[in-house]
Amino acid sequence: MLKTMSAPDEKEITPEEAPENGKGITYSGNKSETVNGKTKDATSVIELVCLAAFTARLVHYAKVIPRERFWKDPKNICIFVIILLSLVDMIIYGVLKASGFYAVRWSRVLRPLLLVNITEGRQLRRAFRSIRNALPQILYVFLLFMFSVLMFSLMALKLFGKRGLKTIEGRPYFTNYLEIVFDLYVLVTTANSPDIMMPAYNFSVFFAVFFIIYILINTYIFMSVFLAVVYNNYKKYLKEEVRKLVRAKRHKMVRAFGVLQERKGEEPVVSQACWNQLVRLVQPDISNAHRELLWSVSDDNNKGCIGKVAFVQLADLLNIQVIMMKSRPHPLKTWLPSLYLSSPSRLVCRMVQHRAFVYTYDLIILVNAVFIGLDEEDPLIANVEWAFLVLYLLEILLKLYSFEPRAFFSRHQFWNWFDTIIVITALIAMIINSALKLSGGYTSRQILDIVFILRILRLIRVVDNIKRFRAIINTLIKIGPTILTFGQLIVVVYYIFAMVGMELFKGKIRFFEANSTDPDKAFCGNPLLKNSVFAKHNYCKNNFNNVVSSFILLLELTVVNQWHVLSSGFTAVTHISARMFFVLFHIVVVIIIINIFIAFVLEAFFVEYTVDQSNLQSSLENKIEELELGVKQEKLDGNLVDAMETNDNDMGTSESTKEKPALMFKIACKRYKTVDGLLQRMFEADLDPEDFAEDEDFDPNNPSNLNFPNPTFDSV
Amino acid sequence: MLKTMSAPDEKEITPEEAPENGKGITYSGNKSETVNGKTKDATSVIELVCLAAFTARLVHYAKVIPRERFWKDPKNICIFVIILLSLVDMIIYGVLKASGFYAVRWSRVLRPLLLVNITEGRQLRRAFRSIRNALPQILYVFLLFMFSVLMFSLMALKLFGKRGLKTIEGRPYFTNYLEIVFDLYVLVTTANSPDIMMPAYNFSVFFAVFFIIYILINTYIFMSVFLAVVYNNYKKYLKEEVRKLVRAKRHKMVRAFGVLQERKGEEPVVSQACWNQLVRLVQPDISNAHRELLWSVSDDNNKGCIGKVAFVQLADLLNIQVIMMKSRPHPLKTWLPSLYLSSPSRLVCRMVQHRAFVYTYDLIILVNAVFIGLDEEDPLIANVEWAFLVLYLLEILLKLYSFEPRAFFSRHQFWNWFDTIIVITALIAMIINSALKLSGGYTSRQILDIVFILRILRLIRVVDNIKRFRAIINTLIKIGPTILTFGQLIVVVYYIFAMVGMELFKGKIRFFEANSTDPDKAFCGNPLLKNSVFAKHNYCKNNFNNVVSSFILLLELTVVNQWHVLSSGFTAVTHISARMFFVLFHIVVVIIIINIFIAFVLEAFFVEYTVDQSNLQSSLENKIEELELGVKQEKLDGNLVDAMETNDNDMGTSESTKEKPALMFKIACKRYKTVDGLLQRMFEADLDPEDFAEDEDFDPNNPSNLNFPNPTFDSV
Repeated sequence: MLKTMSAPDEKEITPEEAPENGKGITYSGNKSETVNGKTKDATSVIELVCLAAFTARLVHYAKVIPRERFWKDPKNICIFVIILLSLVDMIIYGVLKASGFYAVRWSRVLRPLLLVNITEGRQLRRAFRSIRNALPQILYVFLLFMFSVLMFSLMALKLFGKRGLKTIEGRPYFTNYLEIVFDLYVLVTTANSPDIMMPAYNFSVFFAVFFIIYILINTYIFMSVFLAVVYNNYKKYLKEEVRKLVRAKRHKMVRAFGVLQERKGEEPVVSQACWNQLVRLVQPDISNAHRELLWSVSDDNNKGCIGKVAFVQLADLLNIQVIMMKSRPHPLKTWLPSLYLSSPSRLVCRMVQHRAFVYTYDLIILVNAVFIGLDEEDPLIANVEWAFLVLYLLEILLKLYSFEPRAFFSRHQFWNWFDTIIVITALIAMIINSALKLSGGYTSRQILDIVFILRILRLIRVVDNIKRFRAIINTLIKIGPTILTFGQLIVVVYYIFAMVGMELFKGKIRFFEANSTDPDKAFCGNPLLKNSVFAKHNYCKNNFNNVVSSFILLLELTVVNQWHVLSSGFTAVTHISARMFFVLFHIVVVIIIINIFIAFVLEAFFVEYTVDQSNLQSSLENKIEELELGVKQEKLDGNLVDAMETNDNDMGTSESTKEKPALMFKIACKRYKTVDGLLQRMFEADLDPEDFAEDEDFDPNNPSNLNFPNPTFDSV
Repeated sequence: MLKTMSAPDEKEITPEEAPENGKGITYSGNKSETVNGKTKDATSVIELVCLAAFTARLVHYAKVIPRERFWKDPKNICIFVIILLSLVDMIIYGVLKASGFYAVRWSRVLRPLLLVNITEGRQLRRAFRSIRNALPQILYVFLLFMFSVLMFSLMALKLFGKRGLKTIEGRPYFTNYLEIVFDLYVLVTTANSPDIMMPAYNFSVFFAVFFIIYILINTYIFMSVFLAVVYNNYKKYLKEEVRKLVRAKRHKMVRAFGVLQERKGEEPVVSQACWNQLVRLVQPDISNAHRELLWSVSDDNNKGCIGKVAFVQLADLLNIQVIMMKSRPHPLKTWLPSLYLSSPSRLVCRMVQHRAFVYTYDLIILVNAVFIGLDEEDPLIANVEWAFLVLYLLEILLKLYSFEPRAFFSRHQFWNWFDTIIVITALIAMIINSALKLSGGYTSRQILDIVFILRILRLIRVVDNIKRFRAIINTLIKIGPTILTFGQLIVVVYYIFAMVGMELFKGKIRFFEANSTDPDKAFCGNPLLKNSVFAKHNYCKNNFNNVVSSFILLLELTVVNQWHVLSSGFTAVTHISARMFFVLFHIVVVIIIINIFIAFVLEAFFVEYTVDQSNLQSSLENKIEELELGVKQEKLDGNLVDAMETNDNDMGTSESTKEKPALMFKIACKRYKTVDGLLQRMFEADLDPEDFAEDEDFDPNNPSNLNFPNPTFDSV
């Protein structure tokens, strides 16, 4: 049941690179000889390959999974339909183009749905489901909000329309109702504040009151209400989802227990041998020591077998990240004991482990920061930079000398890895740069850029040495995986909007390089943009001509500022109704998705602030302590990474290893392998660990969790 | 102990109206003859009167309160010091001006502190204390955020500084470190996006990545973290404050119990007579029926006396808003029973109470909205408007006919009042307008504006008829009082910044009316602004020349958009370091106060979503039901206002009054008299109602709650 089902390896859909100039693309069938046609051919071929891969995967699934189950899962049906539609679209497009008609590749909008519907897109699917469920509530607030905007617009029309005021561009001010609605909608996003208010304000101070009330109600109160509603609903449905997921997991574990159980006295139990076999099957790479530790947590009373409750915990236990630390002597100590244990060597070690060593290097970094700020073309400063690099290298070598290298470079020593990689890369880049300079007097701008960036990244280490900062950064790093889920969500939504945008606006606005002398440059290659604000702001490169610039443009629209200017450019080259596209984007991305993002960051921070470790974790920790396998841990921030770096003694230094056992465990307290772990913890307070009452009330109508035996179950 | 201490009546400090032109103000002592001097004189006199009022109040307090207590209270000391400093400042200013020196009225910055420190400023004081306590946490995040900005600036300097790029205005792009820091700080506020990125983006698409990462980290993640930290800390300290307040209240109630108690059997109790006397003293305007109801809740078992726990509840009980509804027959029924009870009259009543009546009027309102949108100068449309007004009047009259007028206009019928006032005012304004028109053909623009606004406000009623919308609006109305607390907070902070801004920038930028032909108009009267973006955007009226325009300008800065342009104007006319003022304002208002505002709206909404009625409220409600005094209440939204409007039967209609008792009670469930009530409810879950263990652990070192017997205790 827990067996991993390996999915066929495949790559992501590559966004097709459309030609930058976007001039009159003529598609001329598969045997086209033009450059554009070739690009089209290439993307078509890539698309076919991708579709073939998805089809292969679907066929593979269909063979593995019972037929009725396969067709009951909406995910599979969805993928099947999308593949079919894409093929139909490709054929229609090819035929239409070959016969010289205008055709739209509408199936491109469907592509992200493939990403959502594959098994690995579980997080994404859950996020989408949460949004879908929260929509009705959001809709009511949105309607009320729009009613308020419409009312204020009507008021603005009546108050300002007949006064003959002019905007700064000399256009009549607030005379057309639909224009007013758009302008006031833009004011909600604050993008045209205070410009939109100035004509009225210049006329009379009392008119400013209208705008102040408008901003207070629609920008501050309604936007906060949106956040509250999105936050509340998202949390509610996510909680429900997580609850269902946990119940499904427990249900499966109970069934597994039913298969493996044997009678011993009154209660059904699972023996240690059977349990060991299972764990080895599920996680082949688990160490024996770790497995024994988990068993001793499950079988708290040393009975040699475990009951149902303890068995069901197994999945969660495996989910807790336990760090094994082999306490080993320094290699130099074994190879050259006389030298390494001599008093000068001991002095060096003590020096490196002293607080002053850290402070010295903090000071060096700060001095370095000043030097970086100075002009690097001065040869003196260039030489000083070499000196700094040597100092950083020396630091790493000294640390490697006094700490056990394998502990220093263990998997969880993020900052050590960070330092070393940065310093080594900087060294390599600087050497290459110098070599280039010496050989031909030529300096590669790219390499120099890399050198600069690396040099500055080194400065981040100062922050790492301040405890409070580290706590904040660690929280941020912890919520990183979740932010990535939102990254996927954003990419999917962006992709859909980018595809629609490319169909609507491709080639309408063109960008000319800085050294171009084309007279069209002043108006982005489109006479309709002559003297427009869009062209004046030099926004020509913000266009929908290819996927990359579309994504950057959509990001700018997400940031909101100047989005009315950006949209004005596209409405000028097409039609006023193109505004709908931009308003819709604002509603979907800024009002819904960004608010969910903020809600998640808030929630994650509150969890960090308030929730203590889960019961399971603390019982695991107690067991580690009980068995005296624990690493002495200053509970500074309750965080492992901190403790490992501040308690220098832990790292297997030459002096303190004698009394300790050779193998030690530590729990990476608050770090979770998966987002599910974090979610489960967020809503843990509401989940009863003993509650798996054969799931009578588990909803069998929800097919998303039950119908398909989850192939990636082991990572839950 | 609970006696109200009446404070001397006094008015708020009036912000002085400085002369608009701000040209060379010369202060020439009290006997000055110039216009400016006269304004100054007037404000000085007003200020003296205000100071005298505050002094009188302070002296009054000092007489009433024991001396050692008076001087232990920091509030009194603070007021004393401020009055003293203001006087010293006024004298210094007068002397300096009289002898021709430049002088600054620095004490004006202190004025808002008077508002904070008077007894009535309790909510405000609490908000400030919460902010002060949350500051350290915010500071750490802020330092980390600034570190990130500085690092990115350094990177930008190295990446773009040597590339010879130009901004759209032709200035060198990213060459000065401090300029970069400012530009990137502005980018965090999104005010200069995407302009700041365009030169680099035009150069290479890869440079866009730099800005995307920057925006992601600093705008999205850090700003969310700010919200999280502000939210969390504010909530934490507010909770602590409320806990202390509740404990202090209970402490006082326990002491009151100690004074009033008498022995009866084992336990000390308070008799009903004594209790009645107390309630009558504390709330003289409470009705006997209401008092008896409260007693029957406290003395649940009809023992004729109550114990300590029940006694302590008194303050909270008095805080629950109970609406008494006298069920009276319609006056027409008593005066003209034969007519009112005739079948046509009954038909009218039934018609008005029918759902279709509401729908008909919704339709009328929508048609009216369309007519409002049309050109009102068309005589046909003007006449149609009269028809609509008659229809609205008819609606009110019909409702008054079928419902009991006193119930219709009872204190809590917000929407009935709203309708009637709007319709009547519109009628009066239209009559005045027509009269003016007929008499001299002259139309008053102001009256017409009022007519338009009233006409549009009438449309809000459509929303009220949709249940879901009403629920949202009611929540917003409920958090209204708290928003007002934030209003005070904002006013205090704005006032301080306005005073500093006026000292720094007064008269530097001038506004010319639209019909002015002054050549200085093009650059706001200051040659330093020639060809500046500030002048081009026509921002001249955004200045610090008087308190009103300062407040409007600060509001525009709060909205954030274009704040860099606004600040650029003021730095151009003074010095580059004036940026500090604007950055500081952004940090204080946008990062801290607006986030607290958002946090409060979020919290209030979550409370509305999750928390049920308090125990005390439900026991009161149970008692009302038990005594069969309750109004049958459809629990639609759990809200009274809804219920009263949808259950038309409740309003004492002609038919359904017979079976009901003459007096009925209702709890205004979720509405609180004071902000304290809402706060207490927000944190109620953590407060044990039986926990008043003589307050051994009550902190006597905190003087804010104990030292000063709160004169407004009865309103808590």
